[in-house]
Amino acid sequence: MTDRSDHRGSGPSGQKTGIPRDHPRYRSLVVRERLARLAREGIVSLEGLTAHGRGEAFDYLIGEKTMASAMLAEKTAAALLLTACRPVISVNGNTAALAPEEIASLQRASGAIVEINLFHRTEERVEKIRRHLESAGVDVLGGTPERILPLDHDRGLSYPEGTGKADVILVPLEDGDRCEALVRMGKKVVAVDLNPLSRTSRMATLTVVDELTRALPNITSFCMTLHRDEAGEIVRSIDNSYFIGEAMLEINRRLSACSG
Amino acid sequence: MTDRSDHRGSGPSGQKTGIPRDHPRYRSLVVRERLARLAREGIVSLEGLTAHGRGEAFDYLIGEKTMASAMLAEKTAAALLLTACRPVISVNGNTAALAPEEIASLQRASGAIVEINLFHRTEERVEKIRRHLESAGVDVLGGTPERILPLDHDRGLSYPEGTGKADVILVPLEDGDRCEALVRMGKKVVAVDLNPLSRTSRMATLTVVDELTRALPNITSFCMTLHRDEAGEIVRSIDNSYFIGEAMLEINRRLSACSG
Repeated sequence: MTDRSDHRGSGPSGQKTGIPRDHPRYRSLVVRERLARLAREGIVSLEGLTAHGRGEAFDYLIGEKTMASAMLAEKTAAALLLTACRPVISVNGNTAALAPEEIASLQRASGAIVEINLFHRTEERVEKIRRHLESAGVDVLGGTPERILPLDHDRGLSYPEGTGKADVILVPLEDGDRCEALVRMGKKVVAVDLNPLSRTSRMATLTVVDELTRALPNITSFCMTLHRDEAGEIVRSIDNSYFIGEAMLEINRRLSACSG
Repeated sequence: MTDRSDHRGSGPSGQKTGIPRDHPRYRSLVVRERLARLAREGIVSLEGLTAHGRGEAFDYLIGEKTMASAMLAEKTAAALLLTACRPVISVNGNTAALAPEEIASLQRASGAIVEINLFHRTEERVEKIRRHLESAGVDVLGGTPERILPLDHDRGLSYPEGTGKADVILVPLEDGDRCEALVRMGKKVVAVDLNPLSRTSRMATLTVVDELTRALPNITSFCMTLHRDEAGEIVRSIDNSYFIGEAMLEINRRLSACSG
């Protein structure tokens, strides 16, 4: 569904890729190669690669840019993190692969605890992801995970000092059942999800319909500039259906323009 | 972006999967696991997994069923294959992984030559895909590939007796630049592409906006039932913009219904 040629560009870490710099989908293809490399290293799961492709398609449909409504959602996400008693960022393999530096910056700006949560969980993979995040400057929560969420699979395993005590939890690229379980436990859940129709998007307290590496720096900026009073006001009036509805309208507008 | 639990279903080849049979996205998740397994075996490329995810998202948006306009496109595809002097089906890693039996059936019904064409090409991978297709009953074209298409990368390598002499070529899940190169060489190109906005979709002579394992059996059925006279009439009036436009309208309709 994409096209590539043989001139060389450099990937995120400077290594040569097979993608020409002037390719219309250069950035998306570089990210795809980066994820493939991190899959070979065991950080990204093979299923995670496919999930990333799903996200790519929705990003394409919203125009691969931050919508005005998403920017407002990002401001609201910052307000939730700033007013939380115990904010937590839950990181999976794709998030660690795509945005380790962005997670580190958001952690510094928000004071959030960062914990690792994996569907395809092995201790070896947790350690690889921990090292990957730490080398980008993330302070990763340690300890022994427990089955804090009522989910059969390994995504139910979380840290008592992280998800266990969190009142606000940012879950980028989350699964619908885990998002639902967190909401049922009374947590305020902030999702970053490019599919406005997903169960995660519909279940979350707040859904940021934006690509992760655009969304996180925006949330970080708002964390650094938002006043506590304004933050408190924002969190009292969250209407997630507005953000979902605006994303669907934007996709509709773009498709209508293309087909018209 | 998806959710899973721990009950067991059986995958396409009867092996146990981690996916419950009653999961709303069961089929999509079984296919995803199948592709991950074939990636481990070297048949599917890691980049192919991400490309598959992109397609999945568009399938979701058209409702994971064959649209009426797509069914008409499939009839038109059959007409093109039946009236061709030398029809060819060009198979890449994802196509081989997803639909080997369906390719075999279409080859029998259409008399088309099947050749392998890979972006991430190694002789070892070509041989693995050849064996995979042959074990499903496909007669795969042999010979030595040449740079028949003016593309720098390995997708430019094709077989003189296949793509070289083809007048009609079916390219499931094709790249935009190869599709364009084939059209420029005067070939009639039939694409199967779930993204109606892609360059492949817009460049092809005919675009079937449908999921591969639904599209191929439909094309096969039409090959078995279509009369030569009717086929000739159909190919004289192909309007690809109709098929593209209908797919975009369908996505629009579905999004409007969800957001309304």
